[in-house]
Amino acid sequence: MVGAARGAGLVSPAADGSSGARLGRVALVGAGPGDPELITVKGRRLLEQADAVVFDALVGRELLALARPDAQLIDVGKRDSRHTLPQAEINARLTELSRAGLDVVRLKGGDPFVFGRGGEEALALAAAGVPFEVVPGVTSGTSVPASAGIPVTHRDLARSVTFFTAHTSGDGKDNVDYQALARVGGTLVAFMGLGRLARVARSLVDAGCRPALPAAVIAHGTTPRQVVVRGTLQDIAAQVERRGVEAPALVVIGEVVTLSERLEGALHAATLTSQGCLEPREG
Amino acid sequence: MVGAARGAGLVSPAADGSSGARLGRVALVGAGPGDPELITVKGRRLLEQADAVVFDALVGRELLALARPDAQLIDVGKRDSRHTLPQAEINARLTELSRAGLDVVRLKGGDPFVFGRGGEEALALAAAGVPFEVVPGVTSGTSVPASAGIPVTHRDLARSVTFFTAHTSGDGKDNVDYQALARVGGTLVAFMGLGRLARVARSLVDAGCRPALPAAVIAHGTTPRQVVVRGTLQDIAAQVERRGVEAPALVVIGEVVTLSERLEGALHAATLTSQGCLEPREG
Repeated sequence: MVGAARGAGLVSPAADGSSGARLGRVALVGAGPGDPELITVKGRRLLEQADAVVFDALVGRELLALARPDAQLIDVGKRDSRHTLPQAEINARLTELSRAGLDVVRLKGGDPFVFGRGGEEALALAAAGVPFEVVPGVTSGTSVPASAGIPVTHRDLARSVTFFTAHTSGDGKDNVDYQALARVGGTLVAFMGLGRLARVARSLVDAGCRPALPAAVIAHGTTPRQVVVRGTLQDIAAQVERRGVEAPALVVIGEVVTLSERLEGALHAATLTSQGCLEPREG
Repeated sequence: MVGAARGAGLVSPAADGSSGARLGRVALVGAGPGDPELITVKGRRLLEQADAVVFDALVGRELLALARPDAQLIDVGKRDSRHTLPQAEINARLTELSRAGLDVVRLKGGDPFVFGRGGEEALALAAAGVPFEVVPGVTSGTSVPASAGIPVTHRDLARSVTFFTAHTSGDGKDNVDYQALARVGGTLVAFMGLGRLARVARSLVDAGCRPALPAAVIAHGTTPRQVVVRGTLQDIAAQVERRGVEAPALVVIGEVVTLSERLEGALHAATLTSQGCLEPREG
């Protein structure tokens, strides 16, 4: 998606108080799930060219090292409920950088439009007349399970996959429709803090999922620190607690988790071989 | 995911009838949604190094051009129900190439594990003792909507996104649970032939979705040939037919489709700027 406010083109109107100089372009770029080689070719190209890089807590240092030595690196890191910068301030910062004539990469973990609030940033940029584009990334929702040997869809096991988030709203209520999730079945992938895991698992069982339904938690997926914990809806929260697993983590629920066991003998060293391999050619 | 059969390592046992030479490695690589710059850095690296590339109909020629001049290019293209090669033959071919000592990239549109039958290929390779890995790709499920200005999740509009497929099973029955999909709500993304669109839309309304629920069909997403048709569950099939839209296409259903209209003034030329830009640096 490439955008610019209707009629605004690349030059800002003098009336907005800016210098009237060229507006910088903003690219909302998905950094992928963690392995720095899982950024897209386009994302890497824009990152290497950017005048400024505005990044989240989930973005690895290896990717930031690709930026130009003179590029501004701006940390607006937020993780779970500990927001470093409110979203409105991030939006304002992006607009400000553009008005200063800088080409900006807004680097977000995973894909910008999968629980990444990229939509809000895109709308704010469009409203401000900032030229922008969205560069999709490899979402953690598919790639983190893959790194644990779990295909999120598989013939006869999962004809659908649902990504959901279990954040609680301001009034403390959990507004996830567990009955609906239990009925839709297939593979369920939860993007959430591990502190909510016990509640989500119990709610799914209460809603009709069988307690023995396979579940897995994958922490630091696709990186050398990856940890995979397998269990069932009934015991996954206790297993995660016993193992002392830390965020960021993804929860996968469904029959496809059993394929991970079938492929386990074939698994080794996960993505270790690709860490640090950002040179385009080796041979 | 990197795999090898337990104990098999990189050398095949002489008892299997092969030469006993080094087994080639197979990488199941996601090619991304269409824009050749949306392959991952790792996917491109493996593609450039491969001795053989086994590809589907949905993979663009620009990506194949990255293979070595002496690499074998093997088309096992299948689109919708017109399978060129049965899955078992593809699996056998991959094993055969590995046993001939060739490093193979199995290049699949989108992500290998999102309705790509990558799981079946991985299981077959593990069973045959072939060393393999899975390199995730940018799934069409998130990136094709993004290229039409549609974030698949958005605060207050969609707290979940469900990818589903509406292929009919052998006995002609449609085994999608439309009641469950209607109830789970959020954003629904259908991977399917457009011939089934009218039936799916009608089934969702019958299951309780409101007829005015926004829907979009995006054909040739993220490429210069991209076509976007917007409507509602009630009229989307007729609109698609009137416009003569062709596969491959993706169907997006949900309130997030309205954001596409809000961003429409900001949209131009989609991903045209990136076509053919596979050089890592321009400046």
